[in-house]
Amino acid sequence: MTTFSNHKIVCLAGGVGGAKLADGLAQIVPPENLTIIVNTGDDFAHMGLTICPDLDTVLYRLAGVANEETGWGRAGESWRVMAEVGRLGGPDWFRLGDLDLATHLTRTHLLRQGESLTAVTRHLCQKFHVQTAVLPMSNQPAPTMIESHGRIYPFQEWFVRKRWQPPVSHIILPDDVRVPAAVSLALERAHIIVIAPSNPFVSIDPILNVYPIREMVMDVPRAVVAVSPIVGGTAVKGPAAKMMREMGLAVSPTAVAQHYGSLLDGFIYDQQDKGQVDSAAMPTLCTDTMMYNQEDRRQLAQTVLAFAARLA
Amino acid sequence: MTTFSNHKIVCLAGGVGGAKLADGLAQIVPPENLTIIVNTGDDFAHMGLTICPDLDTVLYRLAGVANEETGWGRAGESWRVMAEVGRLGGPDWFRLGDLDLATHLTRTHLLRQGESLTAVTRHLCQKFHVQTAVLPMSNQPAPTMIESHGRIYPFQEWFVRKRWQPPVSHIILPDDVRVPAAVSLALERAHIIVIAPSNPFVSIDPILNVYPIREMVMDVPRAVVAVSPIVGGTAVKGPAAKMMREMGLAVSPTAVAQHYGSLLDGFIYDQQDKGQVDSAAMPTLCTDTMMYNQEDRRQLAQTVLAFAARLA
Repeated sequence: MTTFSNHKIVCLAGGVGGAKLADGLAQIVPPENLTIIVNTGDDFAHMGLTICPDLDTVLYRLAGVANEETGWGRAGESWRVMAEVGRLGGPDWFRLGDLDLATHLTRTHLLRQGESLTAVTRHLCQKFHVQTAVLPMSNQPAPTMIESHGRIYPFQEWFVRKRWQPPVSHIILPDDVRVPAAVSLALERAHIIVIAPSNPFVSIDPILNVYPIREMVMDVPRAVVAVSPIVGGTAVKGPAAKMMREMGLAVSPTAVAQHYGSLLDGFIYDQQDKGQVDSAAMPTLCTDTMMYNQEDRRQLAQTVLAFAARLA
Repeated sequence: MTTFSNHKIVCLAGGVGGAKLADGLAQIVPPENLTIIVNTGDDFAHMGLTICPDLDTVLYRLAGVANEETGWGRAGESWRVMAEVGRLGGPDWFRLGDLDLATHLTRTHLLRQGESLTAVTRHLCQKFHVQTAVLPMSNQPAPTMIESHGRIYPFQEWFVRKRWQPPVSHIILPDDVRVPAAVSLALERAHIIVIAPSNPFVSIDPILNVYPIREMVMDVPRAVVAVSPIVGGTAVKGPAAKMMREMGLAVSPTAVAQHYGSLLDGFIYDQQDKGQVDSAAMPTLCTDTMMYNQEDRRQLAQTVLAFAARLA
């Protein structure tokens, strides 16, 4: 087994798929060498609470308290508060479990005390005994908006409330968001950057869009690799495939690789799509990318880092 | 039994004691003739939520879902969220039960949608099947502050977090709060105003201080009566007696009557203090004012209204 104890690894991650690969990486990379930079474009204010779905999915996964059935939220969750919110005519379309609510309440409290989202996330990591650095892509709100039929939806209105059904004509990312110092430092030091198999358009692009993350990723001295979230002509989870069709793209690993373009030094895609990606354009690796359990996650992380190390 | 079907009754109420008398009144006065005007000076923003302790105590009591042991909060309550907030290092000094949290989340959501606190309270009353009109004293924030040893505490910091132990030198009420239309209308129409056995300084004075409630109470054509919250040399519940000592007042029903002064047409105090109030100053009624159960509450309400009707 190759070890990566001397490499500084950064992973760019969205929700479920990103959290799984982050967990795989955390199994083989010492905490001081691993940083997960997480999309906060999905974050929103709801019933007075600041909710950061991707940060929490990563946090719960790394803490070993993730709900294995849903991929989001907490194991052993209960729903007493939300049942009562529904009875009282409050909004219950975004499901917040009782344990999960404690995270949102604590985060909102600390933010209102004046702490940055970076500091609050570090605090929560400590409380969940997560040693890997989990960093929000920005301390500023950076809301992703979805345009559909000329109407603009805040991300969660489209994603959860409308179950990502309104066809996507355009994804609107804010253009005035800047990187926090901790993210900047992690990118400066990185030897390998792994783009997780998250949605390229609404999970990874919002991270790259935070100035100057895209430029910093370009400048990384060694290797930037991405794992395709498109497998067998569809998305492993979520709306990526549907969005690609609606935006006139092929639903294929190749289209994902082309989307990231010159940012990448290497591309990893699933064995189900063997031979479909042109390896003349850039180095590719075709492997089993499906992560059903902890061992799958560790194995994929090992494969990804070995590939990246060869490119570096 | 005297009925009061032709009298418009308004009750000014704080938390536990006010809620109990409000419940007694609701048992004998048709809903269209009864309005409870509730102190919102205790309201505060906590972990992103707008919390209105006295409104909720009155609401839960009238709805028949009050916690009989504590006097505040809901019956059958559970504490899963707060236990986790505590584990996560969030603030757990203000205890919010799971069912109770649903009220705060729903209220905060509706306020952020642009609804007034009056409208939100009406919405919650409907959901709890409370027909009596429960009105916040104001739609504006009207925070009561407590000055102690030159330090100024937001009310709940002093009341709950410090367990009302810092000695009170001064109570600071905002001077720019105005009455909502619904409160104004109820006071204009009132035949009888009952000041509940709530804390005169931090429950009733904040209501009277909302412009122009004090002036409107003065102008009520028939009778204004108050029930003493001081019984047997102490407060039935809460810090009233301690505050009176610290502010150099006698801890007695007489001191309460003198505090309200010319606002009152009549004063009701407990049989334990028989003969202690000078009935030359104003009409008084000495009776059993302790409310241990629903029947006690109904009986006291009946006695109070009969006394007020004789004065009218």
